[in-house]
Amino acid sequence: MKLTIERAQLLKSLAHVQSVVERRNTIPILSNVKLEARPGSLSLNATDMDLDFVESVLADVARPGATTAPAHTLFEIVKKLPDGSQVEIDHSAEDGLLTLRSGRSKFSLACLPVEDFPVLSGGDLPHGFTLSAAELKTLIDRTRFAISTEETRYYLNGIYLHAATGAAGDVLRAVATDGHRLARVEVTLPEGAAGMPGIIVPRKTVNEIYKLIGETDSDVTVSLSETKLRFAFGDAVLTSKLIDGTFPDYERVIPADNDKYLDADVKVFASAVDRVSAISTEKSRAIKLSLEKGTVRLSASSPENGSAEEELEAQYDSTPLEIGFNSRYLLDILGQVEGETARFAMADAASPTVVRDQADSGAIYVLMPMRV
Amino acid sequence: MKLTIERAQLLKSLAHVQSVVERRNTIPILSNVKLEARPGSLSLNATDMDLDFVESVLADVARPGATTAPAHTLFEIVKKLPDGSQVEIDHSAEDGLLTLRSGRSKFSLACLPVEDFPVLSGGDLPHGFTLSAAELKTLIDRTRFAISTEETRYYLNGIYLHAATGAAGDVLRAVATDGHRLARVEVTLPEGAAGMPGIIVPRKTVNEIYKLIGETDSDVTVSLSETKLRFAFGDAVLTSKLIDGTFPDYERVIPADNDKYLDADVKVFASAVDRVSAISTEKSRAIKLSLEKGTVRLSASSPENGSAEEELEAQYDSTPLEIGFNSRYLLDILGQVEGETARFAMADAASPTVVRDQADSGAIYVLMPMRV
Repeated sequence: MKLTIERAQLLKSLAHVQSVVERRNTIPILSNVKLEARPGSLSLNATDMDLDFVESVLADVARPGATTAPAHTLFEIVKKLPDGSQVEIDHSAEDGLLTLRSGRSKFSLACLPVEDFPVLSGGDLPHGFTLSAAELKTLIDRTRFAISTEETRYYLNGIYLHAATGAAGDVLRAVATDGHRLARVEVTLPEGAAGMPGIIVPRKTVNEIYKLIGETDSDVTVSLSETKLRFAFGDAVLTSKLIDGTFPDYERVIPADNDKYLDADVKVFASAVDRVSAISTEKSRAIKLSLEKGTVRLSASSPENGSAEEELEAQYDSTPLEIGFNSRYLLDILGQVEGETARFAMADAASPTVVRDQADSGAIYVLMPMRV
Repeated sequence: MKLTIERAQLLKSLAHVQSVVERRNTIPILSNVKLEARPGSLSLNATDMDLDFVESVLADVARPGATTAPAHTLFEIVKKLPDGSQVEIDHSAEDGLLTLRSGRSKFSLACLPVEDFPVLSGGDLPHGFTLSAAELKTLIDRTRFAISTEETRYYLNGIYLHAATGAAGDVLRAVATDGHRLARVEVTLPEGAAGMPGIIVPRKTVNEIYKLIGETDSDVTVSLSETKLRFAFGDAVLTSKLIDGTFPDYERVIPADNDKYLDADVKVFASAVDRVSAISTEKSRAIKLSLEKGTVRLSASSPENGSAEEELEAQYDSTPLEIGFNSRYLLDILGQVEGETARFAMADAASPTVVRDQADSGAIYVLMPMRV
């Protein structure tokens, strides 16, 4: 393998690749990136056995070939090369070293045989559809904050993606919950997604694809089976195993009959929650909402710190109600609301509250109250 | 105590004060800031028993008085109040609470009696002089990276500040070392500093005063005894205990006879060191310099990663020499050099190397070599 490549091209792709590679690996080759030079391009491939990412970049290839080299070290080196430089990469089977030259710098990296690099085969991926990067970002961004980190409830450690029938027709729906809050967001069902199985996309995959599509405006092609998922966009392909479990019947926990409505200006409400919660203890983060006609009073107290309260004008017409929430969870949800106004639908102090975004009728958030 | 104060004023001062207050305190009142309202001003005072900081800010005081309240909570609250708001602070002895009102927010904070707040008396500070903030910044900035973090060598856990006779006359000198590298920087001896004792200023004090004078251009008045130090500038006073120990005779470790000179462009050299060291192990960070007439070759290798080398043009006229350094220590020193060129004066691969800054003849850095 022998090739010349622009530093900027190589750096960008290595940045993607090294993010997939775990810092600590018991299997040495998992610390490596697989480099494969074909006429006109270099492909970079990293995997952690659950997730496989491959990207091709333009390169002037003098001699095709393949090897694997330490991903983080390679990334560190290329990051430190001067802007605008050209990088020459050379690997011959004889000494087994990857030589990287740029300007007056020369690096020799220990390689591992390309044959040992694990292949995460996608297998047969019978279902496929295309989403815009913006749609995929919305589905991820507004739900991933609610993904559970409790490893014992492994089936909640991801986003549940499935086809469903929403109020406005068929939709592709993303749901995440940790038992304390739930986020449900949907986009119009793309062509080809109708018969897809419901799948649970693991957190790491969610975060990697979110980072990767942050830079792109292109469409993302999604292919999947019951056990694997693949995102393809531009010159990159991310393949991932899925969480093998059953996502709970989330519809059951979304109350339909809550009839005490509070309409609040999202920014005003969020900054008041943030202020008042400055006093609540680090552990509980509890905040109390006291609702009366036309006003909501926020209050918090802690034995160590003291107490805080703030009154806001808000649309509320039902009977008075006192209800407590974890202020951080409340702020997480308010942070996702796109419209100016959020509508809270409550039943009583012990039942889940539903939060809706005026700008996105498909988005629903459910928040369990706290005893305060 | 009752007063009104601009949020921006209060926030700035609380930011200073809360930095002195430790996050965890076994003595509860050390988590608090002492607030003292006098006609026209509010003074804020924090201490950790070794360090005492007091600052006065303009305030519209309706009723003078004093109390103490949790510093970090107060800071969090004021940070979250809207820009441009006015803050009303009220404390009456009856309920023992500090009430803070702003707009429609109201906070009640638990206070502790002002009589229990520890006073770090400066005592008699017979020596005094004035430095510009820029001079003090130079003394701290160029030496503090070399302060030891080894607690057993407590007498190295600070900057040694003393009057000395330099090449260009009487100077005020700052020295720090951790046994692997040493930094010595000096400014013209200010009037009044001639008879001062040598003092060791603790790391926390060094870092706090550095942060505080970052915002100021005014002169700093320094007063000191053998056990205490005080910085006064603007409306703020920082008083600190000193490290009770004997700083080693640092002059002994600065070699005077090193006669192998290498003159290198600081930026070019530093970025090459940074690149080549990308390959050295996280633990040793070792890098080798191979010097020959007109060139220096940098190289590094690690059993896991491979090897790296880079050749630079540099002024070197002595006999060939190979010498190893910790690349991070080398970069720390190069980061302090203000001029375009750094001059390395070496003896051999086992003796300390001296680095000088062409732009500051008073600054000297000493670096112990590593076996490579």
